[in-house]
Amino acid sequence: MKNYQATIKDIARKLGISPSTVSRALKGHPDISEKTRLAVEELAKALKYKPNAIALSLRKSKSNIIGVVVPQIVHHFFSSIISGIEDLTSKNGYNIVICQSNESAEREIKNIQTLISSRVEGILISRTKETTEFSHYKSVIENNIPMVFFDRVCPDIITDRVIIDDSGASFTATECLIKSGCKRLAHFKGHENLLISRKRLEGFTKALNYYSLPVEQSLIVKAENFDEGFAETEKLINSNLIPDGIFTVNDMTALGAIFALKKYNIKVPEQVSVVGFTNEIISEYSEPSITTIEQHGYEMGYKAAELLLKRILNENENDFVTEFIPTKLILRNSTKNNF
Amino acid sequence: MKNYQATIKDIARKLGISPSTVSRALKGHPDISEKTRLAVEELAKALKYKPNAIALSLRKSKSNIIGVVVPQIVHHFFSSIISGIEDLTSKNGYNIVICQSNESAEREIKNIQTLISSRVEGILISRTKETTEFSHYKSVIENNIPMVFFDRVCPDIITDRVIIDDSGASFTATECLIKSGCKRLAHFKGHENLLISRKRLEGFTKALNYYSLPVEQSLIVKAENFDEGFAETEKLINSNLIPDGIFTVNDMTALGAIFALKKYNIKVPEQVSVVGFTNEIISEYSEPSITTIEQHGYEMGYKAAELLLKRILNENENDFVTEFIPTKLILRNSTKNNF
Repeated sequence: MKNYQATIKDIARKLGISPSTVSRALKGHPDISEKTRLAVEELAKALKYKPNAIALSLRKSKSNIIGVVVPQIVHHFFSSIISGIEDLTSKNGYNIVICQSNESAEREIKNIQTLISSRVEGILISRTKETTEFSHYKSVIENNIPMVFFDRVCPDIITDRVIIDDSGASFTATECLIKSGCKRLAHFKGHENLLISRKRLEGFTKALNYYSLPVEQSLIVKAENFDEGFAETEKLINSNLIPDGIFTVNDMTALGAIFALKKYNIKVPEQVSVVGFTNEIISEYSEPSITTIEQHGYEMGYKAAELLLKRILNENENDFVTEFIPTKLILRNSTKNNF
Repeated sequence: MKNYQATIKDIARKLGISPSTVSRALKGHPDISEKTRLAVEELAKALKYKPNAIALSLRKSKSNIIGVVVPQIVHHFFSSIISGIEDLTSKNGYNIVICQSNESAEREIKNIQTLISSRVEGILISRTKETTEFSHYKSVIENNIPMVFFDRVCPDIITDRVIIDDSGASFTATECLIKSGCKRLAHFKGHENLLISRKRLEGFTKALNYYSLPVEQSLIVKAENFDEGFAETEKLINSNLIPDGIFTVNDMTALGAIFALKKYNIKVPEQVSVVGFTNEIISEYSEPSITTIEQHGYEMGYKAAELLLKRILNENENDFVTEFIPTKLILRNSTKNNF
């Protein structure tokens, strides 16, 4: 019983009155008789009763809560972002609650409603692939709640933003394939609703143009998860359109491509090299391990939280900014790296 | 401009008054003059102004929010649980907010405070390894907020619970090694603060006893992530204590063991078989793929949410229950499966 703490219920039970009477007596509520109040106070003192911290924090007007909306928490990239956000916000006495939109625009709208009704002081958001109507973002701004977009931004909504140079990073990824000697390059692209998908395709095309290689439309296909990566690779193999290098929009798609190539005994990287994007955990431990772009999710989350806190604390009255987080090519065994 | 919706700000700008005056005028607030109120109402009608859904939902007293606290969202198991919770709660008109304790007891206490101050109607929680003091759980109960524990429960706090039979599942996992012909079995165990770790060790020991195999204490070591799995395997190899079967407390530890065995050219499963626990994504795609226990996170989350909703809606006045979710052994290539 070393850590025993008396509660309102204990006092109520001992005095044979209701917990709400005890609570009101302790607050000096006028409905409670002098006699009851004194009895409660005396027993509270004897039992060393302390009002609990949770109840106390509820009485403050600031919520100290920041809301985060991400498409899917299962991705290592998003959980790294959340770690970065948590580290900065907790240092500053803020707590975060996370909502998952699951790539559903409808769910995202509910997430925003939930966060507003939770009295968050600011919102950090990465939008879904599906979102094409933006009035819920406008609602946040109209409610005077500061908002910062990260990674997947919304060009029509003007706020602070934290992104990477997706086009530049994709140029570097594609260049790594070209420098390894690949001449027929494929790109497995993401959903065209997302700016990041369009930018990654742009970087791929720019690299081919820069190195005077042909852009073959039959080798640019939509595939953005393991199953699609597998299926599209199998299709290219069966159509005799096998490329010697594939740059995919993310790592799970790269893994799907590698599994399809293995199925047909096509050697990675000797016959076909593969480069992914994001540096998910899987890309370090797969066989072969996957060359990819590290996006520094932790730093992105930290920076986004920093921009948001400045707006919440009115320390930033400047125009909205777009911050770029540097990326890095990580060479692993799915490319030849002979340059 | 097809989807253009007039806002309070538009009305305010056009009439040269403040948005809060417009807002109060629309609500018929007595501080607002009749003249202003009529002007606002007329313009609101002309502009087809609709009060936004978010503001409306704030006026309701029920928050319709359920809070979820998990140790780490990056694990596939926890994100599957969250999917199960979301599917049931959203069908019932509830939204969820997620907090991550990051295995820190201090953070977990803040998570609980945050959820209470967000006016959640119920809490679903899986505790950290570190939590040894339980007064924050008691606070939830004292605040009359229904709470359900899942996976990592707290024996001292009586609530509804959803768990798996960790001991039984570990018996099955160990039995799979024994039936494949393994005779010298190691167990890489988890943090002893957690009941699930103690139960998994219990199942391992029970299986050895049942099949009359020796329980060697030198082969039972603490290792619960990739790095520890790698290091402990390397230690066993270097001490000439190589087992022929390893059962690990989770899949990342199994992967660490496999990587260490590969480093020393020890063949998996021919020389050493490995069984993990949880069925993380990585165990399907690693080389070799990992035999493991599927915990059905989705079903666990769904059931936990169901129990919580019944308490919230007062449909369940029975005693608290502990529900078990069935598990399943998934045979892959890290075991011989020759039985």
